[in-house]
Amino acid sequence: MASLSADEWLIRLAKLQQQLVEASMDGCLITQNVGLFYYTGSMQAGYLFVPQQGEPTYYVRRSLARALAESHVHTVALHTFRSFGLQLVEDFPSLFTDEAGEKEVRVGADLDTMPAQLFLRLVEVLPQVKLIDGSSILRKVRSVKTAYEIERISRAANVVALALEEGLASLHEGMTELELLSRMETVMRLQGHMGLMRMRGYNQEIVTGIVAAAEAAAEPTYFDGPAGGRGLSAAFPKGASQRSISRNEAILIDIGCCIDGYVIDQSRIAVIGQLRPELQAAYDIAVAIIRRSESQLRPGKLPEELYLEALAMAEEAGLSAHFMGFGRDQVKFLGHGIGLEIDEWPVLAKGFQEPLQPGMVIAIEPKFSFPEWGVVGIENTYLITETGFRTLTVSPEQLFEIHA
Amino acid sequence: MASLSADEWLIRLAKLQQQLVEASMDGCLITQNVGLFYYTGSMQAGYLFVPQQGEPTYYVRRSLARALAESHVHTVALHTFRSFGLQLVEDFPSLFTDEAGEKEVRVGADLDTMPAQLFLRLVEVLPQVKLIDGSSILRKVRSVKTAYEIERISRAANVVALALEEGLASLHEGMTELELLSRMETVMRLQGHMGLMRMRGYNQEIVTGIVAAAEAAAEPTYFDGPAGGRGLSAAFPKGASQRSISRNEAILIDIGCCIDGYVIDQSRIAVIGQLRPELQAAYDIAVAIIRRSESQLRPGKLPEELYLEALAMAEEAGLSAHFMGFGRDQVKFLGHGIGLEIDEWPVLAKGFQEPLQPGMVIAIEPKFSFPEWGVVGIENTYLITETGFRTLTVSPEQLFEIHA
Repeated sequence: MASLSADEWLIRLAKLQQQLVEASMDGCLITQNVGLFYYTGSMQAGYLFVPQQGEPTYYVRRSLARALAESHVHTVALHTFRSFGLQLVEDFPSLFTDEAGEKEVRVGADLDTMPAQLFLRLVEVLPQVKLIDGSSILRKVRSVKTAYEIERISRAANVVALALEEGLASLHEGMTELELLSRMETVMRLQGHMGLMRMRGYNQEIVTGIVAAAEAAAEPTYFDGPAGGRGLSAAFPKGASQRSISRNEAILIDIGCCIDGYVIDQSRIAVIGQLRPELQAAYDIAVAIIRRSESQLRPGKLPEELYLEALAMAEEAGLSAHFMGFGRDQVKFLGHGIGLEIDEWPVLAKGFQEPLQPGMVIAIEPKFSFPEWGVVGIENTYLITETGFRTLTVSPEQLFEIHA
Repeated sequence: MASLSADEWLIRLAKLQQQLVEASMDGCLITQNVGLFYYTGSMQAGYLFVPQQGEPTYYVRRSLARALAESHVHTVALHTFRSFGLQLVEDFPSLFTDEAGEKEVRVGADLDTMPAQLFLRLVEVLPQVKLIDGSSILRKVRSVKTAYEIERISRAANVVALALEEGLASLHEGMTELELLSRMETVMRLQGHMGLMRMRGYNQEIVTGIVAAAEAAAEPTYFDGPAGGRGLSAAFPKGASQRSISRNEAILIDIGCCIDGYVIDQSRIAVIGQLRPELQAAYDIAVAIIRRSESQLRPGKLPEELYLEALAMAEEAGLSAHFMGFGRDQVKFLGHGIGLEIDEWPVLAKGFQEPLQPGMVIAIEPKFSFPEWGVVGIENTYLITETGFRTLTVSPEQLFEIHA
């Protein structure tokens, strides 16, 4: 019944504990559902404490029965929130006491997701703990995928390819963006898609991506991506709208799904008829950028260099104002890590200077946005291998011109 | 292009400022997407500052263009995160300075949703501000709906009723829970459902509800509700699974959707054939409980009393171990406020002692869970009126026995 093999979670635990040593943290407290799942194989309500050395303990409020069935980690009932500090001290005595008596214990936690209210209450009930931001090390560990994880991302890639096939087969003039999206969502759902793609960023939401045509695709929005989309209303200002698709419009099909927890992300452009020359030219530049990125994609390459090189190519083509969004609403990255969440590390952006490593999985998505005409571009998800990369995306890479 | 009428947001602003006076807060800082939408009509990336008196300002990072088009509130560009404090002091000089010079300003914020990382950074860049937990007053304001909001919840109620009709028409032996859910999701999506239902609680996720049959419906999970569900894997341990539905199984159809930002929630039980007598008896008690709740549903009634009275009825029927979940995995409430989020106030639970008021919208969901047989019960969403209540749910209230 355990959802992970023992080997799998031991790899993950070892990676985290190595990071704890490097960051001089005595332990790590995980509160977010995705983090709990990654380290225990179970996503129940509770807290995972991982000491720098030795076995972690999963403190579960609800459902303990389910956590006991699914988790590989030592799993116990969380007595009460108030007494959580006492429970920790009892379970990890050597960590909390030295010869001189009590000592302060530095614990990294997922402060990028944990609500401030919970943080302030934890500070209160864990008086011996100095709770510090451990989100960087958690994101770093997760950035390198195991074979188990890669297999699941590949399964998601197959499902999204089936959905695209169905979407293209059903595409016709007068269809709304939402209708096209719904056709593809149904395919993915029946294949086991969990209904949404998880994002780590505060206030970021994604269901199954962005399906949007012409100027509606270029409507700017809060969403941390190169395409926005009109969306269904001001209450969901992103992605598909109820707008009908017409001939010769660029249709952005930027979709993904979540299979067994793992997400994939890909973008293709379709058109009923053909693109206007300016969009065709921009699309060709996007393809040239992704080819250039691929030629550099190997262990040792710096993520920020991939972004800067792409930026230079966009500039050279006279398209820098349209690259990764338009004007003030541009985003400053070329791609992003992907796994249990769609916004993982590394980000292909300035400041990401740790070299690529084998096992990293990255979506690269050069796109150009034109307020009057829409968004064109391409996106594949890649695995970094020992010698270069493997493309996990399986959909044919082409501009889909539908002649109907 | 503004998504709210001027009257509408003035009502909301007045309610919040009244709460700020009562709580002796000088202002309120809103960072969560749903809160931003509620008070501005626009859901972009930024912060809303509402002073205790006078006009609020919406500081927008992205997309400013969209916020300017949609928002009713005075909307400006957020210069930089670092200088946000200076920008606030400049815009609200009378708040930040008195005769003696600088003063500390008490600002309530949505600390129940704001990540700790953001909280700690805000504390740093707002040295003159004492950031305190304002989540209770924010939840209190939102608990009473305007006419505008009620109309939208009613629209969502109509959409979910259409979906249930389609689900029941397609229901057959051998269909999986996921297939049944997907049929209903497609109907809702094409009617404008935004693809997910928002929840405020940390780590809580809901797509379109729980469709689960027999023992799979009773599998316990982290989810803060009376029914869990096997789910699709340990990575989404809740709701519909790939299990096939057989004759004489209790099928829980607990679904909702999100139309123009507003959600609805309802539950019905279906069976191909008929329920075993124990489940039929428990279903009848659930109906009796909801009738009893309705008889008490009016302004002045205490939310916790509705819960305690229901608990007493469950006890009297000898079903207290099965009420609102089974054994250790029971939840301690009978219903919940609903609006932009599915887990709003008031909660029908111990400790909620502020009387019901006209305009509150509440889902009431007495359910009984049997580990071997599944979950039965009923759920409607109600509006509290001046004299009593109005049922917003429009689906026929019955046990759907399918004879196929």
